[in-house]
Order: sequence, then structure tokens, then C-alpha cells
Amino acid sequence: MPDSPIRKLVPLADKAKEKGKKVFHLNIGQPDLPTPQNAIDAIRNIDRKILEYSPSEGIKSFREKLAAYYHTFNIDVTADDIIITTGGSEAVTFAFLACLDPGDEIIVPEPAYANYTAFAILAGAVIKSIPSKIDEGFALPPVAEFEKLISPRTKGIMICNPNNPTGYLYNRSEMNQIRDLIKKYDLYLFSDEVYREFCYTGAPYISAFHLKGIEQNVVLIDSVSKRYSECGIRIGALITKNKALKKNVMKFCQARLSPPLIGQIAAEASLDNNKEYMHDIYDEYVERRKFLVDGLNRINGVYSPIPMGAFYTVARLPIDDSDKFCAWLLSDFEYENQTIFMAPATGFYTTPGYGKDEVRIAYVLKKEDLATSLKILEEALKVYPGSKVRQIAAATQE
Amino acid sequence: MPDSPIRKLVPLADKAKEKGKKVFHLNIGQPDLPTPQNAIDAIRNIDRKILEYSPSEGIKSFREKLAAYYHTFNIDVTADDIIITTGGSEAVTFAFLACLDPGDEIIVPEPAYANYTAFAILAGAVIKSIPSKIDEGFALPPVAEFEKLISPRTKGIMICNPNNPTGYLYNRSEMNQIRDLIKKYDLYLFSDEVYREFCYTGAPYISAFHLKGIEQNVVLIDSVSKRYSECGIRIGALITKNKALKKNVMKFCQARLSPPLIGQIAAEASLDNNKEYMHDIYDEYVERRKFLVDGLNRINGVYSPIPMGAFYTVARLPIDDSDKFCAWLLSDFEYENQTIFMAPATGFYTTPGYGKDEVRIAYVLKKEDLATSLKILEEALKVYPGSKVRQIAAATQE
Repeated sequence: MPDSPIRKLVPLADKAKEKGKKVFHLNIGQPDLPTPQNAIDAIRNIDRKILEYSPSEGIKSFREKLAAYYHTFNIDVTADDIIITTGGSEAVTFAFLACLDPGDEIIVPEPAYANYTAFAILAGAVIKSIPSKIDEGFALPPVAEFEKLISPRTKGIMICNPNNPTGYLYNRSEMNQIRDLIKKYDLYLFSDEVYREFCYTGAPYISAFHLKGIEQNVVLIDSVSKRYSECGIRIGALITKNKALKKNVMKFCQARLSPPLIGQIAAEASLDNNKEYMHDIYDEYVERRKFLVDGLNRINGVYSPIPMGAFYTVARLPIDDSDKFCAWLLSDFEYENQTIFMAPATGFYTTPGYGKDEVRIAYVLKKEDLATSLKILEEALKVYPGSKVRQIAAATQE
Repeated sequence: MPDSPIRKLVPLADKAKEKGKKVFHLNIGQPDLPTPQNAIDAIRNIDRKILEYSPSEGIKSFREKLAAYYHTFNIDVTADDIIITTGGSEAVTFAFLACLDPGDEIIVPEPAYANYTAFAILAGAVIKSIPSKIDEGFALPPVAEFEKLISPRTKGIMICNPNNPTGYLYNRSEMNQIRDLIKKYDLYLFSDEVYREFCYTGAPYISAFHLKGIEQNVVLIDSVSKRYSECGIRIGALITKNKALKKNVMKFCQARLSPPLIGQIAAEASLDNNKEYMHDIYDEYVERRKFLVDGLNRINGVYSPIPMGAFYTVARLPIDDSDKFCAWLLSDFEYENQTIFMAPATGFYTTPGYGKDEVRIAYVLKKEDLATSLKILEEALKVYPGSKVRQIAAATQE
């Protein structure tokens, strides 16, 4: 079981805070934007005497509203296809447990959300990864690379679209290539689409459920955490039109009894005002994205592709080792008594050596905080012992 | 993965309700008693703009209050020994995942909480069970039976005390025997003590943490679901003084990010008023227990031992097959347009053949509902095709 690259440095951050240092959290996708007022009101108006179990598959009225929400994205599912889970984390875990036997393999383009590996290990499954490249903007690696990895133990492909951590959004051609692979080898397509509301370029969001002919193979992963700034309520969903699979997933759901009741009430209320809420949120992220990525690319030796969706970017830094640098920022560095907490990208790759000069940065903080964070990063790179900024500067001057 | 014996008949119950039948839920430990007003108030007064992630190990102030609560039971733990989980279910799951490798074995006296098996399967572990007997009041089977099952793969013993489903409360001598086994073979002792507040006979509640010399081996499982009628908020705890184990459990906690935020707020508020709340609740269960067990034993051919704790009893019925009988009650029987939903005890045993004439009954409904339920059971046994009541009656008349 690997440590979480997002959370493993938390003790260092806690120590920095104890010393009175201000720490900007760029490491974790916890937006600073307010949760929808509808959700807060639903909680504050709760009118129950007993906080009882909900159904193992989740509250019916909530599942019905979710189905209607998916219809607005041309995702044709019913309330019966939806199983409410304790966060997207549980949805991925149950998907792997229900679909994979110990020793089975799934193929994942990387960098990828680190906890997929953790959940695969939990299911006894093996992740086979294909690195995508920062210089190609983290586009889908060639299908030939996928086919090389397919073995009799291969049971599925896992994608995240729009992508965490890269912000990449798969285009029609890439999605069709994935569809053809899924069909040809009869694999599961695990598609984590929790960032669907965050697509910034006008390019279409193509859901796995938009792909014709593989409807029975798709396992959609969703969560309200990110879109409604409701990370704490732990509400996600697993969506499948495959009845046999649903039956298996339900066994795991029944074993853990039920998803959180109050979270479901909050999430259901959030859906009532989805369009208006997302409108404001969206504009804010468009601003932050431009501000962060422009700022990063202005720093000597730093490169970030422009993310098309989600609210992360993977940036290349002029450093020896992202794990060391991120730890050093928390333990040894300060700029005007402030520092930044970033996620080393090594944790998002399983291919050894990858991510050593990359970090994941979440642009979930307001512009003012992002501005300070960029300044801190720039100053840190000037003095970090493993920094290559001086070499770059020297080379430029020659 | 087995079906949940508690929830697998839910579709039949739903159908019965759709037909307008009233169904009394004796199958599930969902108390009808009100959640503490403190908890409801804490939710209604929530004053947050963002429902954000909580720490992976749970909110510190909640863990500190929990530690103080355990001290009132002479359980000497600190906030640092406590990890908040998404219900007791997740605590058991993480305990198994962190302590057991695939193929490792744990010994469990049965009948046992059915989902232990599900969580063991999830961890790739194997449950070796020893049946306890209804005619012995479900007392701990002889230690010699445990020793027979110990192999090089045995890593732990799992107990539930007070017991779900039997209501048995282990005495000092039994707990000392368990302690000696744990010590002799250096095993983990997984001790599910979520019903500690429900001990009815004056006999002491002996926690696994009361046993001297095995402090590093104990993994305590707790949950607020049952004691505060808060099953829906999904808040439990895993408690260990073993630092290496805690580190491993934390990896799973970080992968699933955090336990539910609002549930923690409700649970923390419940602790503020624990004593007063439990006082009233306790008296109510004492009444219900006496009423139910007396009523069961008055029905021809039915036998229930008197449970010493928790709020379940396993009763022997004059029937051919508890799975068939419980399904028949929902599908085919009604008494004044009402029926009862019980959990077949077969699901609480892994030893084949056990539990076929036993059911688990939760006395979580008010006395009036229990009275109706008893009447329904009595009438059902008169007409159920697989009933042995007529044979018993005939034998008595001869």
C-alpha cells in the first residue's frame, strides 16, 4: 500500500503551521469556493428525529435527480443504473472489487489519480500504466502502447476525463480509439468523470456513456465533492447499465450498509440549483487557470501546459527531485513567513523515474493566494539546494 | 462475496410494502429511538461556508472527546490512538486490510455479524469459525476448539462483545482465556464493542483493552450508530495502541481521503450529553428485551435465551428453513395486512447446516410494535407450510 502523494506530507505542513508559518494548500483539490447555499440550507433545515440508515444504493429521490442531471449531458441513464457511494473513492473501490479478481490487470494512462493504485491493490489487482508526456500536453498515448500491455489478465482500462492531475480533456478521436479497444477485447471502461463541469476550451466533454456499442462495459465514476465544494460530505456514485455487475456491486454496498445520509440530503439539494451555481464557479476557475498557468510559465525554468479541464496542472520545475523539493518547501523554506504545499508528481506515476521534476498544483485558491504562491515558488527555486535555476541562468548568459 | 443476510430480502419487503402491507423491521439494528437532540441541533446550527475534507484520521476535538468517553469505561486510550472511520464497517475493513495478507486466517466464534465474512473476503483473508450453541446461551466455545484451528496462517481472533447477533456478554473467565490465546500465539484481537452501553444483567462489560499484557495486539472497533440511533451518519472508529499498525491503517484512511464531516459534528455533539441520553435509552431496551424474550418463549415451539446485552436475540423456531420462512413471511403471509421482516440466522454462520431453525430478531421497535410482531409470528407459525408447530402440538397431545 503506497502513501498518498497528496496527503503524505501533511505532518510536515502541520509542523510548519505550528511554527506560525502560513501554508498555501496547492496539494489537494479542496476548493475554497462556497458550497451551494441550497445544500447548507438543506442541512440547517433538517427535520428528522432519527438519523437512520438510508438504502444501500442511496436515496431514491436523489438518484432520480442525478439521472435527470446526467440527461443534461446526454448521458442516458436511469435512477436504477445509479448506486450512491461514500465519495468517488468508494465508487472506484467497489468497481475494482466487483470487476476484478486478484491478479487481474487494468491499464491506466499516467500520470493518474494516485489512489487508483491504492484501490487496485485493495482489490488485489495490478495496474499497468502507460506514461503520457508533458511535452505532448499529456494527450492519450498511442493505442498501440495500450495493445502491447493487453494480456489474458487484462480486464479493463481506467481513464479520468477531464483528467486529474493533468487537466487534459480527451477528444472524440481519442475516445473512439478507447471505445474500439474496449470492444475488441471486451474490457471494462472505468471512467472517472467527476470534473465534467470544468471544461474550459469549448471542446466537447465526451462521456464514456456517449460511446456507442460499449454501454454494458462502462462503469462511470462520479462525485459531488469537486463540483459543489462538498469534499467533506463523502458522496459519489457508481453508474452502470450492466445488471449483473450492478448485482455484484450491491453486495459490497450492503456489506457497508449505507452511504452517508446527511451528505445525500446536501447533494440532492445542490442539484436543484446546479446551473446557476456552476455558472459562477466556472468563470472563477477560468480566471484562476489563466492566472496560474501564465504565472508558472513566467518563472525561470518552469513549464506548464494549459490544462483544458478540471482544476489541476502538472508543471515541470527546474529541480532534482519533486519529493525532496515539496518536503523542503514545508520544512526548510519560508518567504515572508509563508510557504506552499504541492503534491510531488512521482506519486501519480508508477513508471519509475517519472515525475521527479514535476508537481501537481491545484488552482482551488483565490487569485490573490495564487499570486502569493507563485511568488513563493519563484523565490524558493532561487535558493533550493537542488534547484537548476542557476544553471539555466548561467547557460542563458553564455 | 455473500449476500447480506440482513439486507438480501429487502426487495421482497419493498414488494410487500408496495402492496400496502405493513412490514415490521426486526431484521436490522435500526433503532426507532430518537437521535440525541444535541446531535440534531449541531447539524441544524452548522455554521460553515464550505463542507470541506476533514483530516483522514478524523477531527481532533472529536477524537479527544471520544478518548474521554472511553476513560469512563476504564479504557486507557488517547486521541492519537483513535482513527475515525466511515461507520464500524470501515473500521473492520481497514483492520482486516492492514493486519491480514491474502490467505491469512482469523478465528471467529459464530453466529457472528455477517459482514465480518464480507470484509474478510474483501481483504482476501479466510474466516475459520467455531459454532457456539443456543442451548448453552451462545457462551464462548471451549478454548481447545480455538486451538485446534490455529495454523501458521492464523493472525487473529475476532469477537463482538456484547454480541451481535446473540446478545451474549463474555465474562471475566472467558475474556482471560481469549487473552491467554492471543498472548500465546501473538495474534491480533479484533474486538467489536459497539454495544458496550447495552449490558443488562449487572455483569461487567470487559473490554479487550482491559486485558493486561496484550495492549499492542488489540484492535478495538467502535461506532456511534447503535448507541445514539445515528446509523445513517456513518461514523465509527478503529482504536489501536500499536503505532506500526496505526501507520498502516492510515494509508487506507488517506486513500479514501476522509470520514464524513457532518456525521463527525453530530457524533461529537452526542458525546456531550452521553450519560443523560443513554440513561433513558437503556431503560427502554431493558423493557423491550424482557417483553420480546418472554413473548417469544410463550409461543409454541419457540425458544430464545435471554440476551445479556446488545439489542438482538437469536431465537430457535419450529421451522424447516429460516431462509424460506423469512422470505415466505414477506411474500406470502399477512396478518391483518401486516407482516414481519426477520434475518435468517444461516447468514450469521459459516458452518454448513447451522442456523436453519434460527432467526435474528432486533428489538429496536417500541413495545406495541413488538407485541404485534409476536402475534404475527405466532399466527405465521400456525400456517407456514414448513412449520413444525402442528407436529409439536400432536406430539404433546399423544
